[in-house]
Amino acid sequence: MSKIKRALISVSDKENLKPLLTTLKKHNIKILSSGGTYKKIKKLKFKVTEISNFTGSPEILDGRVKTLHSKIHGGILNKRGNKRHLKDIKQNNIENIDLVIVNFYPFEKVIKNKLSHQNIIENIDIGGPAMVRAAAKNYSDVTVITSLNQYDELINELKKNDGSTSLEFRKKMAQEAFSETAYYDSLIADYFNKITNTYFPQKKIFHSELIKKLRYGENPHQKSAIYSLDNSLNLNQLHGKQLSYNNFSDIYAALTISKSLPKDIGVVIIKHANPCGVSIIKDKLKCYQSALACDPISAFGGIVSFNFKVGPKLALELNKIFLEVIVANKFDNEAIKILKKKKNIRLIDASNFVLNKNYKIYSSNNAILLQNEDKLKFSHKDFRIVSKIKPNAKQMKNLIFAFNVCRYVKSNAIVLACNNSTVGIGSGQPSRLDSCQIAINKMKKFVNPSKEIVAASDAFFPFVDGIEKLIQSGVSAVIQPSGSINDKNIIRYANDTNTILVFSKTRHFKH
Amino acid sequence: MSKIKRALISVSDKENLKPLLTTLKKHNIKILSSGGTYKKIKKLKFKVTEISNFTGSPEILDGRVKTLHSKIHGGILNKRGNKRHLKDIKQNNIENIDLVIVNFYPFEKVIKNKLSHQNIIENIDIGGPAMVRAAAKNYSDVTVITSLNQYDELINELKKNDGSTSLEFRKKMAQEAFSETAYYDSLIADYFNKITNTYFPQKKIFHSELIKKLRYGENPHQKSAIYSLDNSLNLNQLHGKQLSYNNFSDIYAALTISKSLPKDIGVVIIKHANPCGVSIIKDKLKCYQSALACDPISAFGGIVSFNFKVGPKLALELNKIFLEVIVANKFDNEAIKILKKKKNIRLIDASNFVLNKNYKIYSSNNAILLQNEDKLKFSHKDFRIVSKIKPNAKQMKNLIFAFNVCRYVKSNAIVLACNNSTVGIGSGQPSRLDSCQIAINKMKKFVNPSKEIVAASDAFFPFVDGIEKLIQSGVSAVIQPSGSINDKNIIRYANDTNTILVFSKTRHFKH
Repeated sequence: MSKIKRALISVSDKENLKPLLTTLKKHNIKILSSGGTYKKIKKLKFKVTEISNFTGSPEILDGRVKTLHSKIHGGILNKRGNKRHLKDIKQNNIENIDLVIVNFYPFEKVIKNKLSHQNIIENIDIGGPAMVRAAAKNYSDVTVITSLNQYDELINELKKNDGSTSLEFRKKMAQEAFSETAYYDSLIADYFNKITNTYFPQKKIFHSELIKKLRYGENPHQKSAIYSLDNSLNLNQLHGKQLSYNNFSDIYAALTISKSLPKDIGVVIIKHANPCGVSIIKDKLKCYQSALACDPISAFGGIVSFNFKVGPKLALELNKIFLEVIVANKFDNEAIKILKKKKNIRLIDASNFVLNKNYKIYSSNNAILLQNEDKLKFSHKDFRIVSKIKPNAKQMKNLIFAFNVCRYVKSNAIVLACNNSTVGIGSGQPSRLDSCQIAINKMKKFVNPSKEIVAASDAFFPFVDGIEKLIQSGVSAVIQPSGSINDKNIIRYANDTNTILVFSKTRHFKH
Repeated sequence: MSKIKRALISVSDKENLKPLLTTLKKHNIKILSSGGTYKKIKKLKFKVTEISNFTGSPEILDGRVKTLHSKIHGGILNKRGNKRHLKDIKQNNIENIDLVIVNFYPFEKVIKNKLSHQNIIENIDIGGPAMVRAAAKNYSDVTVITSLNQYDELINELKKNDGSTSLEFRKKMAQEAFSETAYYDSLIADYFNKITNTYFPQKKIFHSELIKKLRYGENPHQKSAIYSLDNSLNLNQLHGKQLSYNNFSDIYAALTISKSLPKDIGVVIIKHANPCGVSIIKDKLKCYQSALACDPISAFGGIVSFNFKVGPKLALELNKIFLEVIVANKFDNEAIKILKKKKNIRLIDASNFVLNKNYKIYSSNNAILLQNEDKLKFSHKDFRIVSKIKPNAKQMKNLIFAFNVCRYVKSNAIVLACNNSTVGIGSGQPSRLDSCQIAINKMKKFVNPSKEIVAASDAFFPFVDGIEKLIQSGVSAVIQPSGSINDKNIIRYANDTNTILVFSKTRHFKH
């Protein structure tokens, strides 16, 4: 136990001080403060000493230097039981500071509000982190409080221990303090990386905030939690059971595709992180039915993402099958009522969800692979038509649709589409030929379309065999990146079979 | 341009100071220092003022407080062109410090060397980061150097600009400085998380160090780099082209499996992050041939990982097909000679690679999903035999082998094995039944084994149909997690067909 006799309070966020000050007063804890915090404490009618009176040095440089003083840091950093330290502090008239309550200049807020560079720089707190780090280092004697969320904990601790804190409590606060300082400097580092155009700095630090601990990870024996890089996931759960790790992973797979589709159009069904049906038919009900038709068996227990608002008609249709999660760009109230009849179904309003420009982080063992996400926008202007027969606008639209979906399917990926909907998806195979066969099998099993079928491949066909298999199964137009030594043979085969062949410039592996 | 008149040097790593000091002397830059750095500079016979003489305050608390002084921080933090600031520093007898050269107490090193808690705490630098942060904040006037790697840059900068530094240079150094402080505090936060058993802290910061920028990411239009969480990847490239993003991703997929196999035994072949052949036959050559036989078409352009040392006989065999990467637990010199005949083949010695206990990080948009890796060790003691016919030791070994490989195959995953080698792998399907079919098709196409075939499924069979398909194709023993409402029917079907059925307690999804 450490008795607290003197506290230093220097907070940027001045809310909720009153109950804390009341407790400190009750335990006869002296208070040091300066600037705005000093004024606030005075205004709340508590006794407080100005830091400049304590140190004997004035606050200078517009407040840039006030606590960066040996009397402050000596008061925090001395080991209470150490004779040499005791001698030092006596000789230098240093008095102990046992409790440091600091929250930092709101760097995160000024960044979000896009204030001027000058303003941003002024909001880099120097004195605050120095005191917090000193107090956390000396946690065996000193208590450090770095967040408003900890005020109640501190109040309880002081009440429980009659003005003292336990070592365990101080250690926990130190742990949170170093998380704060690391997080804070990570934000600043990111800002400097940005203004210096440093995409891959020598030392890269990722900061994230806990959104919630999950029941478990991909499997029950794995511990798991979800964090956000910017405080919120922007997903609003309206109903249903708690989201699991696999739910989140599927939701992100779904939203990444949904947000790549035309505004307010499109349905995506995901199972095991792969799409098993996508449609961009304008009629909402038909769009869903068409996505579902692509592989209704796999859709069982899957998640559906609507790039538009879900109404009652659709809700009735959705209730017909078992789904784990429904994600939508808002739900009509009537639709919510209908969907809530199923107790467990998770309803997620993703209308605030926006794709951002973060890195894609993939970790394995002690390595982190970073890349920017594959969000290349493409249109038919980027593509080269290499067959004698040229696609018309409708065919081109179907080809682009298929190619776009294809990039979100795990490699090797083959997507068959017809009339703005997928009709066969072959995913996750080491051999491209196998992915072709899987897509064809699916198509024959479920949709068996009579209209024109187009095919997309995420990477080039190494041989003629894959494209041959597709064409023999009814495909009349193919889009693929090109780049094989067999490209010429493939073009010849397409021409011999009156097939449309388009070369995209870009490859879209995804693993 | 900012002329440098006074530098403060306080370095934990005292190497390479001489050329730097020579340059500072040449430009008449005064030097402040203290403690060990002061002694070192004296020893190198350069003129230097003690910090305690500069501040007028002694170094106290065993060095815990020496630079945490308003004269130091006022000297760093004042805005040179600001009249109020000028007035403040004159009134308080503060002199400018224009260059701060600091590297921190070696916290990372003491953590790695597992020193005592007390020693670790003493190595939390307080004064150093405070000065570095102050100097970096005031980069418009002050130059901050935080790493030995920057000494040459600084020397060149001073030479080029006759004792001044450019704003651009100072900004770059500030960017690197905040990366340093964030990285440093992230290490400390990790240590405190560990000693307080905090697995998922409210704020989680990941620190990583750049290993190298890659040519591109999964696709040529994506920028990419690989970082390490602990300074090194422990992979030693002996020969061949630069490793690509997809190479790294496949290498990690391969090593994760290899390291799960018995010591010094096993071959893994990876294509598009999925295994397409795994064997644990003891004879090295047979082991490779057997892994390759599982899907020789997919292995083309894949990567092979050997859990043992590669000798010349195997090297000759490896040269027969096109492989992108060969990973091994060392290569015999003769084998290297043989393999180097292929100019581009990447040879990776992974003998120093060890699996660690890091989180698995998966990011999407602004979310980070964290979980610990699926490294559960299992043996037949964990499994429940539910069929009338019981497996013998050899059958059980095959079942465990298949189940272990299965957990590293993307879900839904089905692995068929025979005689300690995979003979069919079905991966990445939204429907388990499709994964069964793919595995069977592969088996029939390539190996078509005459001996007993066992099957493993990463999650339960929802219906009898999957297991039925496997048994009808020659499978005589199945291992799966169980948990379906149809478990009883599945057991009945197994017994009716004289099939061995084992329920593992654990599921092993992987996406």
